[in-house]
Amino acid sequence: MNVIIDLCVVPIGVGVSVSKYVAACEKIFQDAHLSHTLHAYGTNIEGEWDEVMAAVKKCHQTVHEMGAPRISSTIKLGTRNDRTQTMADKVTSVQNKLA
Amino acid sequence: MNVIIDLCVVPIGVGVSVSKYVAACEKIFQDAHLSHTLHAYGTNIEGEWDEVMAAVKKCHQTVHEMGAPRISSTIKLGTRNDRTQTMADKVTSVQNKLA
Amino acid sequence: MNVIIDLCVVPIGVGVSVSKYVAACEKIFQDAHLSHTLHAYGTNIEGEWDEVMAAVKKCHQTVHEMGAPRISSTIKLGTRNDRTQTMADKVTSVQNKLA
Amino acid sequence: MNVIIDLCVVPIGVGVSVSKYVAACEKIFQDAHLSHTLHAYGTNIEGEWDEVMAAVKKCHQTVHEMGAPRISSTIKLGTRNDRTQTMADKVTSVQNKLA
Repeated sequence: MNVIIDLCVVPIGVGVSVSKYVAACEKIFQDAHLSHTLHAYGTNIEGEWDEVMAAVKKCHQTVHEMGAPRISSTIKLGTRNDRTQTMADKVTSVQNKLA
Repeated sequence: MNVIIDLCVVPIGVGVSVSKYVAACEKIFQDAHLSHTLHAYGTNIEGEWDEVMAAVKKCHQTVHEMGAPRISSTIKLGTRNDRTQTMADKVTSVQNKLA
Repeated sequence: MNVIIDLCVVPIGVGVSVSKYVAACEKIFQDAHLSHTLHAYGTNIEGEWDEVMAAVKKCHQTVHEMGAPRISSTIKLGTRNDRTQTMADKVTSVQNKLA
Repeated sequence: MNVIIDLCVVPIGVGVSVSKYVAACEKIFQDAHLSHTLHAYGTNIEGEWDEVMAAVKKCHQTVHEMGAPRISSTIKLGTRNDRTQTMADKVTSVQNKLA
């Protein structure tokens, strides 16, 4: 089962600057060879369910190891079995309607 | 790693009534012996990360099998390594401040 | 337009304990006479769109005034124009399917 | 109070294709002259709280008028009063840590 997720990780108890934790997660998606795109309020990730979820778990573990005592993440998870659709397809589909 | 999540599953392409799909997911959490509480906009679930995530995956698979061609879920995921905290602890902690 | 929301407010930069900020928001919903229910990962709130959103804004303002330099909230927002449905209706509808 | 939000609108009861509804919302943010960026699982929007929220409301109203009987949106809402930070700043901050 393929999945497109949007992940936003919020470390709690480590001050107001969270970018180094987000960067550590980006590195994990890169190392896992998962297609991913950073935006201003999270990261889109695409791939096989188990691989994507393993990366999300590793992200939580890593952010804890970096010193965050508490983490609250928000994830949107999209699956479909009617047809294949990539992250790029989704954006293109909306842009075509706007053109 | 223990996790408290809040899961809201939205089946797309099966009309406006989604309660039977939500009920099917509740049944999965029950069968997995995961502590869970239904509310008006999702379900709180508590347990070991892998067990909770396996239930979330089974929920997506089941809702697809029931006929939903597309699903968009929203999950909040809380982990902490400074201390143990249950779902009940979190609610009690706020209620004590209100009392 | 009526709305049922689920609000989860995460103050950033004030340490790991967030319950006093959540309690302050509960007080705001109470004072606004909005129907609301606390759960382990947020609060369900029901009412007229503008009144609910005014309470959410006041909640952000209050949490900042209490000392949080940064806040990241997650909100789910449900509206429907096919029929009236309360928060209690939503829970009952699922429970009936489980019975 | 400035806010950066991430909005994902899911129309329910209108089939599996939702891009024309998302496009209608994009048009609303454009017409409101709000800085916004579409991604594969939502749209980042930046601006003064009341203006951003008015656009979100108009988006729900418009999607209902287009025929969707039910809508479930997910919004992440970030505010901070310690310093000014744009959507572009947030992305750059992470990218600098990755470089």
